[in-house]
Amino acid sequence: MPHRKDPGSVGLVQKQFYTFCEPPHEMELTSGAKLGPITLAYETYGRLNSDRSNAILILHALSGDSHAAGRYAEDDKHPGWWDNTIGPGKAFDTEKYFVICSNVVGGCQGSTGPASINPATGKEYGLSFPMITVHDMVRAQVRLVDHLGIDRLLAVTGGSMGGMQALRWAVSYPDRVIASIPIATTSKLSPQGIAFNEVGRVAIMADPNFHGGDYYGRPAPREGLALARMIGHITYLSDDSMHEKFGRKLRGKKAFGYNFNVDFEVESYLRYKGDTFVHRFDANSYLYITKAIDYFDLSLPDGSLVKTVEHVKAKFLIISFKSDWLYPPYQAREIVKALMVNGVDVTYCEIDSRYGHDAFLLDEGEMSKIITNFLANVAERNGIREAASS
Amino acid sequence: MPHRKDPGSVGLVQKQFYTFCEPPHEMELTSGAKLGPITLAYETYGRLNSDRSNAILILHALSGDSHAAGRYAEDDKHPGWWDNTIGPGKAFDTEKYFVICSNVVGGCQGSTGPASINPATGKEYGLSFPMITVHDMVRAQVRLVDHLGIDRLLAVTGGSMGGMQALRWAVSYPDRVIASIPIATTSKLSPQGIAFNEVGRVAIMADPNFHGGDYYGRPAPREGLALARMIGHITYLSDDSMHEKFGRKLRGKKAFGYNFNVDFEVESYLRYKGDTFVHRFDANSYLYITKAIDYFDLSLPDGSLVKTVEHVKAKFLIISFKSDWLYPPYQAREIVKALMVNGVDVTYCEIDSRYGHDAFLLDEGEMSKIITNFLANVAERNGIREAASS
Repeated sequence: MPHRKDPGSVGLVQKQFYTFCEPPHEMELTSGAKLGPITLAYETYGRLNSDRSNAILILHALSGDSHAAGRYAEDDKHPGWWDNTIGPGKAFDTEKYFVICSNVVGGCQGSTGPASINPATGKEYGLSFPMITVHDMVRAQVRLVDHLGIDRLLAVTGGSMGGMQALRWAVSYPDRVIASIPIATTSKLSPQGIAFNEVGRVAIMADPNFHGGDYYGRPAPREGLALARMIGHITYLSDDSMHEKFGRKLRGKKAFGYNFNVDFEVESYLRYKGDTFVHRFDANSYLYITKAIDYFDLSLPDGSLVKTVEHVKAKFLIISFKSDWLYPPYQAREIVKALMVNGVDVTYCEIDSRYGHDAFLLDEGEMSKIITNFLANVAERNGIREAASS
Repeated sequence: MPHRKDPGSVGLVQKQFYTFCEPPHEMELTSGAKLGPITLAYETYGRLNSDRSNAILILHALSGDSHAAGRYAEDDKHPGWWDNTIGPGKAFDTEKYFVICSNVVGGCQGSTGPASINPATGKEYGLSFPMITVHDMVRAQVRLVDHLGIDRLLAVTGGSMGGMQALRWAVSYPDRVIASIPIATTSKLSPQGIAFNEVGRVAIMADPNFHGGDYYGRPAPREGLALARMIGHITYLSDDSMHEKFGRKLRGKKAFGYNFNVDFEVESYLRYKGDTFVHRFDANSYLYITKAIDYFDLSLPDGSLVKTVEHVKAKFLIISFKSDWLYPPYQAREIVKALMVNGVDVTYCEIDSRYGHDAFLLDEGEMSKIITNFLANVAERNGIREAASS
């Protein structure tokens, strides 16, 4: 709950935790393995209305976490990762909606993941952590939503891997989702996307500090993780936005250095992004989450996306970005088509942004307006009362 | 000289060497440093005509070398890297033209590079090797062409970094080039391209076997180099060609493994490409050559491409490939425009290939035909006699 509000801000927030300690302690995963007990770290913004019908679940991407909005302390340098869309008067309007965001299972920001203690051994899981899928992330979220006493979510939404979860929610829990807003995402990652993830994993595993994932209490495989992050960052930007942001500008010099130090701004940016990431992220989580992304294929088991989505009941808003080459618009259009074949009520918007995959985090304005209108429409049609009037 | 000819093949070939041992032993580099003596490894195919006017210089890309066509031994598994364009009846027709290809200075296939012995110390250069530029590569080639007694080249050509050299030849040695055929190239690498190169370099330098580049006689930084090569390969293919080549096909299994072994074909392909590369390439050369590519900017020193190319005399054929996102067609069109502003005779062809940057190596047929016709036209207009008639 917010303790203080800036204009348009949810103010100060707290991370909360929910552990599935009621039976069954274990959750069966897609792979057939079992995992438990599971803790999910989560945050909420806004108030749940009296009939518990105004909840929106925010789903994060690869490097995200439960801290989607607000600040933990007034002097925090940065707010949560989607603060520009969550808050009073924003797209996910906390005056109207009760917004929830949880860290995925397999993550490293409070939810159970490879850095957690395995109760069977008393030591960190490391690579003995079972492989998790996007469906497993959603299975755990269902438990959290149950815990919060919410039967049906007004909306599920997220970008990138968050969009995969929004799709999985609508397909596998059709009675529990009124609307789904997958953004900058796909029904299955392209081989190019798998390739970039694989290179990141190879980089982490090649780090001499990796020790088969058993590096806790020792120096972490930071160089490998930084490399993986650098690769990721290139794929999140567009050629266009890199021209705009860096061009061929030199970093703190007027002429080429003719050595292997940083010459160009873009090199400096990437090194910085890699170096800062390793302080907040666990390399093993990076391995597990990228595998979950690679495995995601909404058309399975039949190989037919049209068939998989046939029981969907949610109304859809699907958003893609023209310059996003990691999750290109044609992949979003494939989902739109499969839904429309099944008569699902779907709105599709291809935003003309230059900022590549990252555009979903930046929100240049259009996205927020589109979401605001879509949610208002869904809430009205479903007679959803705002928290304020409850 | 070929010892044996298959139909359309230059047959058996030999690598030759030329060392600049006449004074000056040293060559001044763009950076101001001096390097020498320099050896260039090179090969030739076809015969020089009596007035030495039918020579075509082939310029290789990052991982290429002087072995552009033919085989060293009859049981060689693969011919030279551009064998599909060089040979009797092919684009660079060895019945008509005398074709030369040399390994760049800084390379590792016989030309002087970081793995060479520094005569001043008696040890390998390693990172004490001076930084080289595309212009330095061309400077060394000029010496080789002098040595072969050739005043003016009928054509210079190459793809990617080879295209950069073809541009540099025409700009800096206007009287020594009748025609230039830059393929899948740019007047300056994009920040995205620099970023990918930088990540590759960081991977090599982070390898515990790197030892500041002083690894000769010890295990080489193979994991880092393999990683760099994996990243490179992703950028050489297109999203489309990866869908066609791999899709989401699994490698030797019918279901996901739910572990960190290879699941997808594309992962297996990349690992294989990385692993095989390290047996034929020196990591330090990879560092130096990628820096040369990053530094290349034909618009320098004035920042105006139009001004830089104003003294060009060569006729140009510029080829790009629609699906090439590493050296996208818009970059080729920038060169075309700058040349046309200066009244240079330039033909531009944007080939509708799906194979990304790699298309210039594959040659699906169109490229060869375009080059064949262009060269025939240039040879006729300039009264170039074929070797056979000499």
